[in-house]
Amino acid sequence: MSYCVGVLLEQGLVLSSDSRTNAGVDNVATFRKMTIYEVAKERVVAILCAGNLALTQSALSLIEEWTRGDDDSLNVLKAPSLFRVARIVGSALREVHGVDGEALSKFGTEFNASFLVGGQIAGERTRLFHIYAAGNFIEATPETPFFQLGETKYGKPVLDRLLNQSMTIEDTTKLVLISFDSTMRSNLSVGPPIHLFRYLKDSLRAGRVATLTDGDAYLLGLRRRWAEGLRSVFEELPGPPLDPA
Amino acid sequence: MSYCVGVLLEQGLVLSSDSRTNAGVDNVATFRKMTIYEVAKERVVAILCAGNLALTQSALSLIEEWTRGDDDSLNVLKAPSLFRVARIVGSALREVHGVDGEALSKFGTEFNASFLVGGQIAGERTRLFHIYAAGNFIEATPETPFFQLGETKYGKPVLDRLLNQSMTIEDTTKLVLISFDSTMRSNLSVGPPIHLFRYLKDSLRAGRVATLTDGDAYLLGLRRRWAEGLRSVFEELPGPPLDPA
Repeated sequence: MSYCVGVLLEQGLVLSSDSRTNAGVDNVATFRKMTIYEVAKERVVAILCAGNLALTQSALSLIEEWTRGDDDSLNVLKAPSLFRVARIVGSALREVHGVDGEALSKFGTEFNASFLVGGQIAGERTRLFHIYAAGNFIEATPETPFFQLGETKYGKPVLDRLLNQSMTIEDTTKLVLISFDSTMRSNLSVGPPIHLFRYLKDSLRAGRVATLTDGDAYLLGLRRRWAEGLRSVFEELPGPPLDPA
Repeated sequence: MSYCVGVLLEQGLVLSSDSRTNAGVDNVATFRKMTIYEVAKERVVAILCAGNLALTQSALSLIEEWTRGDDDSLNVLKAPSLFRVARIVGSALREVHGVDGEALSKFGTEFNASFLVGGQIAGERTRLFHIYAAGNFIEATPETPFFQLGETKYGKPVLDRLLNQSMTIEDTTKLVLISFDSTMRSNLSVGPPIHLFRYLKDSLRAGRVATLTDGDAYLLGLRRRWAEGLRSVFEELPGPPLDPA
């Protein structure tokens, strides 16, 4: 499994992915699941993936090859909108399905791959898309400003409770890291390092992908203080007005 | 889906179940998923279930029929240990599988049913078991004092963070209700009323099953204060020491 979160804010975007892949419990490895394309002052495109690594890597290799090809309609560096970029990612997934789908099916393996595409292309607003294994996709809106991929359930309650689109990039980063911490604490298939990509709208500049390892001092402090805070909130809550057992 | 939690404490047991069942989004109904057997001063047995309602109801009907039958080895009112009660529940599941398994398989429907069995039989300690669809089962221990059934992931982080076996029945009830609240907020297939069964060890007395409806004042207050508390802990946490996006 994997865990990725993408949040579309009024200020811009926060995108984050873990690095663990596993095929069974004895075949665990580390892969970055975040790819950034940038054309300075013109476009910033971040692509995050989850699912079967062979499938997502194949799709990403196709997308990369297509940036050097003749067909502009498949080139994420030339697509006129982020909607078109999402379509290109969908097309790559469909091509991979055409090549690998039948063989996987014969082995009883699910065609499991999904992507987040976030960023901005000059002339457009900042946008965020969730692309499904079938290559179709949905876009984030003010009502639903975040998407998750992979092992989504453990880290969803805290996002459901605290996230809103008018939060700052800084606060959202903090919240996303808490969501990762909740997930990593409860599920071994999600693991560090965590990659963080934050995009300030209309900057059309990609900045640096931050990498937080397991021993990262900020992450450790956040984990400890969040756990302590939860415990103290819990202790202050009144007990149930029930007869004693 | 469903959500059930069972916790084995030094003080006794806290068991809780939701009441929502759904077969598709347009066929939602309310069923209690908790059954209590009591022989005063001799045994208390609570059985909680999750999964396909047709399967769990069939298994429960068999268990009930067997209490009126001739075969003591299948009678939860006469079983010499809670281990034997767990076996009886497993046997009921296997009988249901024998009757329904092949037909379900032809319809591509998974044989999805699982149970918690908690309680005490005179002469034994208080025990808690988790019975799988295949009828096999595991028992709670001090290292892993809680089991969940059904839609388990949303409500697991808060249990992982705060639960320990030396908590009081009252505090554990509060925590289990927070776990239910997190689950119900993020997933529509889990819903009230919530049934709560608390057992004080060595009492060999079942007490009353508490029923908390959606409008329950304590539940509403807990929900609001927990959300407010989380928000204030979140706001007090330091921001990430990263360059601005």
